[in-house]
Amino acid sequence: MDFAFDARTEELRERLLAFMDEHVYPAEPVFAAQLAEREDPWAIPPVVEDLKAEARKQGLWNFFLTGHPEHGGLPNLQYAPLAEITGRSSHLAPVALNCAAPDTGNMEVLTMFGTDEQKKRWLEPLLDGRIRSAFAMTEPEVASSDATNITTRIVRDGDEYVVNGRKWYISGALNPACEILIVMGKTDPDAERHRQQSMVLVPRDTPGLRIGRGMSVFGYDDSDHGGHAEVFFDDVRVPAANLIGGEGEGFAIAQARLGPGRIHHCMRSIGVAERALELTCKRVLDRVAFGRPLAEQGVVREWIAEARVAIEQLRLLVLKTAYLMDTVGNRGAHTEIQAIKIATPRTVEWILDKCVQAHGAAGVSQDTPLAGWQAGVRSLRLADGPDEVHLRSLARAELRKYS
Amino acid sequence: MDFAFDARTEELRERLLAFMDEHVYPAEPVFAAQLAEREDPWAIPPVVEDLKAEARKQGLWNFFLTGHPEHGGLPNLQYAPLAEITGRSSHLAPVALNCAAPDTGNMEVLTMFGTDEQKKRWLEPLLDGRIRSAFAMTEPEVASSDATNITTRIVRDGDEYVVNGRKWYISGALNPACEILIVMGKTDPDAERHRQQSMVLVPRDTPGLRIGRGMSVFGYDDSDHGGHAEVFFDDVRVPAANLIGGEGEGFAIAQARLGPGRIHHCMRSIGVAERALELTCKRVLDRVAFGRPLAEQGVVREWIAEARVAIEQLRLLVLKTAYLMDTVGNRGAHTEIQAIKIATPRTVEWILDKCVQAHGAAGVSQDTPLAGWQAGVRSLRLADGPDEVHLRSLARAELRKYS
Amino acid sequence: MDFAFDARTEELRERLLAFMDEHVYPAEPVFAAQLAEREDPWAIPPVVEDLKAEARKQGLWNFFLTGHPEHGGLPNLQYAPLAEITGRSSHLAPVALNCAAPDTGNMEVLTMFGTDEQKKRWLEPLLDGRIRSAFAMTEPEVASSDATNITTRIVRDGDEYVVNGRKWYISGALNPACEILIVMGKTDPDAERHRQQSMVLVPRDTPGLRIGRGMSVFGYDDSDHGGHAEVFFDDVRVPAANLIGGEGEGFAIAQARLGPGRIHHCMRSIGVAERALELTCKRVLDRVAFGRPLAEQGVVREWIAEARVAIEQLRLLVLKTAYLMDTVGNRGAHTEIQAIKIATPRTVEWILDKCVQAHGAAGVSQDTPLAGWQAGVRSLRLADGPDEVHLRSLARAELRKYS
Amino acid sequence: MDFAFDARTEELRERLLAFMDEHVYPAEPVFAAQLAEREDPWAIPPVVEDLKAEARKQGLWNFFLTGHPEHGGLPNLQYAPLAEITGRSSHLAPVALNCAAPDTGNMEVLTMFGTDEQKKRWLEPLLDGRIRSAFAMTEPEVASSDATNITTRIVRDGDEYVVNGRKWYISGALNPACEILIVMGKTDPDAERHRQQSMVLVPRDTPGLRIGRGMSVFGYDDSDHGGHAEVFFDDVRVPAANLIGGEGEGFAIAQARLGPGRIHHCMRSIGVAERALELTCKRVLDRVAFGRPLAEQGVVREWIAEARVAIEQLRLLVLKTAYLMDTVGNRGAHTEIQAIKIATPRTVEWILDKCVQAHGAAGVSQDTPLAGWQAGVRSLRLADGPDEVHLRSLARAELRKYS
Repeated sequence: MDFAFDARTEELRERLLAFMDEHVYPAEPVFAAQLAEREDPWAIPPVVEDLKAEARKQGLWNFFLTGHPEHGGLPNLQYAPLAEITGRSSHLAPVALNCAAPDTGNMEVLTMFGTDEQKKRWLEPLLDGRIRSAFAMTEPEVASSDATNITTRIVRDGDEYVVNGRKWYISGALNPACEILIVMGKTDPDAERHRQQSMVLVPRDTPGLRIGRGMSVFGYDDSDHGGHAEVFFDDVRVPAANLIGGEGEGFAIAQARLGPGRIHHCMRSIGVAERALELTCKRVLDRVAFGRPLAEQGVVREWIAEARVAIEQLRLLVLKTAYLMDTVGNRGAHTEIQAIKIATPRTVEWILDKCVQAHGAAGVSQDTPLAGWQAGVRSLRLADGPDEVHLRSLARAELRKYS
Repeated sequence: MDFAFDARTEELRERLLAFMDEHVYPAEPVFAAQLAEREDPWAIPPVVEDLKAEARKQGLWNFFLTGHPEHGGLPNLQYAPLAEITGRSSHLAPVALNCAAPDTGNMEVLTMFGTDEQKKRWLEPLLDGRIRSAFAMTEPEVASSDATNITTRIVRDGDEYVVNGRKWYISGALNPACEILIVMGKTDPDAERHRQQSMVLVPRDTPGLRIGRGMSVFGYDDSDHGGHAEVFFDDVRVPAANLIGGEGEGFAIAQARLGPGRIHHCMRSIGVAERALELTCKRVLDRVAFGRPLAEQGVVREWIAEARVAIEQLRLLVLKTAYLMDTVGNRGAHTEIQAIKIATPRTVEWILDKCVQAHGAAGVSQDTPLAGWQAGVRSLRLADGPDEVHLRSLARAELRKYS
Repeated sequence: MDFAFDARTEELRERLLAFMDEHVYPAEPVFAAQLAEREDPWAIPPVVEDLKAEARKQGLWNFFLTGHPEHGGLPNLQYAPLAEITGRSSHLAPVALNCAAPDTGNMEVLTMFGTDEQKKRWLEPLLDGRIRSAFAMTEPEVASSDATNITTRIVRDGDEYVVNGRKWYISGALNPACEILIVMGKTDPDAERHRQQSMVLVPRDTPGLRIGRGMSVFGYDDSDHGGHAEVFFDDVRVPAANLIGGEGEGFAIAQARLGPGRIHHCMRSIGVAERALELTCKRVLDRVAFGRPLAEQGVVREWIAEARVAIEQLRLLVLKTAYLMDTVGNRGAHTEIQAIKIATPRTVEWILDKCVQAHGAAGVSQDTPLAGWQAGVRSLRLADGPDEVHLRSLARAELRKYS
Repeated sequence: MDFAFDARTEELRERLLAFMDEHVYPAEPVFAAQLAEREDPWAIPPVVEDLKAEARKQGLWNFFLTGHPEHGGLPNLQYAPLAEITGRSSHLAPVALNCAAPDTGNMEVLTMFGTDEQKKRWLEPLLDGRIRSAFAMTEPEVASSDATNITTRIVRDGDEYVVNGRKWYISGALNPACEILIVMGKTDPDAERHRQQSMVLVPRDTPGLRIGRGMSVFGYDDSDHGGHAEVFFDDVRVPAANLIGGEGEGFAIAQARLGPGRIHHCMRSIGVAERALELTCKRVLDRVAFGRPLAEQGVVREWIAEARVAIEQLRLLVLKTAYLMDTVGNRGAHTEIQAIKIATPRTVEWILDKCVQAHGAAGVSQDTPLAGWQAGVRSLRLADGPDEVHLRSLARAELRKYS
């Protein structure tokens, strides 16, 4: 057992920290200004492309693609502390390193399950950061945490699949650079529960596919990174070759996609918590009320200490999970992935709540990133399965030891 | 001791419930549609004026103005259960009844401290619902929970006062109908701590007064009820007659204004909780996951029960506080007002969090009122003094019993 | 609606407060000394009888017996604030006023369901405080919160009932003054779920009845008020006339017994919280660490304020429940009784936890009543049904409104 | 970074697990029976010596003495998982391996600071497990978390030190095998804050030393492992050679003693949590209420899952702390030691509370170890400094990064 980072990780951390200092943090106000000035409400500020170019030049690229060092991918245990650092500037750093959701999960799916043709057509430009993508699973009408509820139909018709259905909260679909959606639907509603679903690649400009309104997350439209679209599929036809894997494999592919996606979110969320805590420490040292800096007032100190205690525990569990994914595989790390999926959002949400409180009105405003982060991590308690589903599953695993 | 409403309250509750059913709830989708279509991003949908006209016609008007039955005002204990009902449609019902913040507090101030001239010029149109108003106290640069921190200057110059400073989160100031601001600033920084501040009436169109951007609350701009403006005062001149009360009385007036304002928020927040719980019960009875309605799943039932237990306790404390305000005065009810100011937002926030969770993605979206309510009540943990300030004060009162 | 006590309550409160000051508090150290010196580990210190005599003389007697003013009984709403006061000295005051569990519940049962013969033989001496009693329901082998699980058998044999079974946590059964047990068992296991059970009166000296060991509650044997015995019934024969009500009515009688018992516990628990808070305020004003009294340290102040906010809400709900029991009956107050059964122990437990923390080692010791109280209220989260059972039932009632 | 145990740890874990299965668990009922039968209320059951002999024979001995492999000591990172295992049978396994508090801390003190004479006289028999010891620091009259409050005096008089004062909660002092106390007192009240205190060795049979009553922890006297005595020092004279280290070094020695003591408690507490969870899983699989095993009821499953998530995080932080103590020293691990001192008791207390709840009345009784454990870990929130002191210190360290 050893709690020190290896030399490669240390070196990459240093390079990434320098990149943050030299490029990312200075880009934050530029990003904000460009957002304020844009005409297209979904346009991505040009500073993002500048950052991407710089990161790629520096070799800070595609770290997320575990198992594929040829593209820059690192083992999870090496990527984790880097992903945490990117979380500190969560709107800029992940995308700058081409490590932003939902592309990451989509690239993983194409790497694992894509045909050569699919890889050439979609994976390559994604790996190059030339296009963006979306993943269309959640539906408004049903509890999507239970994949068997999905109502979107994907029906084979000659050489094509015909897609009909309605999705929402399709993140990134409003990004002008988004060219492709991976769509989950049912090809065989009569098959065994977990063999009914399939996934197909649907180019965003396919006739019949309509991007509707952007869905909100606590008042945020997240238009700075592609929003969360409602998407309508009305007799959308794609070539049969757009099927990913085989018919009936949609559920299995979705499961394979989830593990890494979850841990990436957790890693970044810890970075969010660290930066929020940093902002808060600075604030309370500076801000005076009733004759003393807030930092000297008992309850504020308690918040800070509690945050530190919580972050340390959480980070270790995320790192151990990364270690297990590398050593025994995503399946072997299933319980731990669920544990961090449960533990991270609530912990970071608690910390952000206290950081907001310590900031007063500024905390809920657009002048600090705190409220936006809080909305984001809170929605992670729902995203790809509410906590309650994961808790139930975890309990089942625990009880199975004794029955 | 008697826990039943009196006959007058029962009668008004029935009339108000009928008004909600016949006019307010049906107006909700109209309001949403008119908001979506407006061109001025701060315009108030016309349906609001229709509701106001109808409410006034029915005598459901100005209930909040305790001590002034001639304007429709009720004792706090009678108003409380009515205010709760208006909270169920918090964007429409309070304004429909001319019982919406910040006008309510401003009307109270003018009633208590205004000159005849001031009353005629500003109070009357406010009581008629013809204009709106704002209250400018919070400043971005200082911890405003400590009123002695205020930096805005109000300087006497001949027959005028000259105002210089910067305020933010001035609710309602972006409402096109807003004509008047009550502004808090320092007239004498060298006076005793609580005699430094004064309040002046500043018409919104006074030269030098500039309404800046709308401040956000968790991504919401609250443009449907006047937003929360940043306001700049640059050598703003008003007649000396616009002073409210005397010089040095600003702090005392602010204190007098706070009590009723707090209890109104609390009353309405309970209505929010009740409606959220109702929406959630209906949802979980309807929604199926893993083969059973959510309502049959243990943890969801626990949320519902906990919500009921919490609401019942909270409502009683709010009602008792109203009773004390009526019987021993706002000052005598000081401790209880602080207690409900602390207890209400957190309790309702907890309930809303569970309601959001039970709604899945819809819960954080614009398709239910839940996320917006959660942002609102969460900001009440900061508004007019963060919880921590009130807790400290409450503890002091408790300890004083023994020292 | 009126939150003031009526004149009768005020007068009784004053008399009771005087009795506490003049007799009960001074008796506390005497009680402790007598406990330390006794030889029989279950003996009740003689000071208790002195207090009883004095209380009876002063007419502070049998207040609990709602509906029976001829015995001293008060309406619940009048009794509630008095019961709270007795909770401040929970080991002495309730028994001094002949208002201690489990006799109270047993007297209610006999009053409601007893034959004249039973009343004469058992109720009268109980009302006089001449004997004590126990209520034997809980069994070690089954989840007793589900009464249909009960395994003790009560079989008719000629003119007798024969009882066989094992009970535990039979409070008061080790009190030397305990003469009678009300025993719940099954007379007809094949009847409808809630008609299988019956209750019989079993004198403690009946052959075959054996009082076993005293069960602990977090290390406490509660020997100062009769402990919690394990009781074995081995072919215990009692006359058929000892049946309470009819065969199959055991469940209904148990239900009737629970309501008042629960609210009495809640009332007294609030008194516990108040006295613990008082002890704590005094302690933290006095105790210095790191150069300042604990009372000036932020987190301690927050505890005190939170305790005050929680107690105020809780007390109001208990009082409203008492009001409902008086006006619409125990059945009509069912939901509220459940709500206070859930809310009280946890709230008081939280307060006591903080009071212990503020007392340091003294808090967990025998030198303050805090730890003992904490053990007691914590066990109330289990007693007559764990919280989870009540929450589930409360949720069902809430959901029923919409289905 | 590597999350697997090294080979030595794995081997020792296997041997210890076998020892637990073959000797410790079977000794638990024997221990209980011998406790029930003893005449001396502070006697230690003879089965303990049998276990010690067996453990020593198997080389499972003195693991705690980090840095001293010659006595069996292991690095903290190797000891941690073993200590956790001993926590599963917390009344027997630690003492069986001669790794029980307070001897462990005392042996560390003597190893680090003792003279050769002191080591020969006291350390050797302690390392052999032939005698027991106590550590006398806490005083009833002052907040002992602030060592400068200590009032016990240690005054040099010729070749002797004279000790006067009163201590309490001196764990182990009632153990008949306890022969020696390390006593903290003030030699120079006028010295600099942290140079006023010294430590002396006081044999338990020294004239003037009187062992008073056993102090309770939530009703438990902990007589099975030496209780927690009140100790009076009345002109107690010991040779000057009994001073540990130099005069004025008492505070520094106490600090050196605390780190390892804290982590040992934390390690064992995790073992407590694991065994409690195991007992609970078995219970809820077995116990039926309302027609279904408790294990299928939503809220119980949630408890189990939450416990698992919490334990995993906590254990990692404890292990990392052990790693830091080994690599950068106890001083370098100061923040982490505080973090686990804060995090462990509350986490395990929460878990035990749910385990008690799932066990019903048995949970608070003497028939399961749960309630006793809960009392124990709860007292750890106070022992050697309440959480609040550690939180404040931790916050100071965090804030120092930015000031």
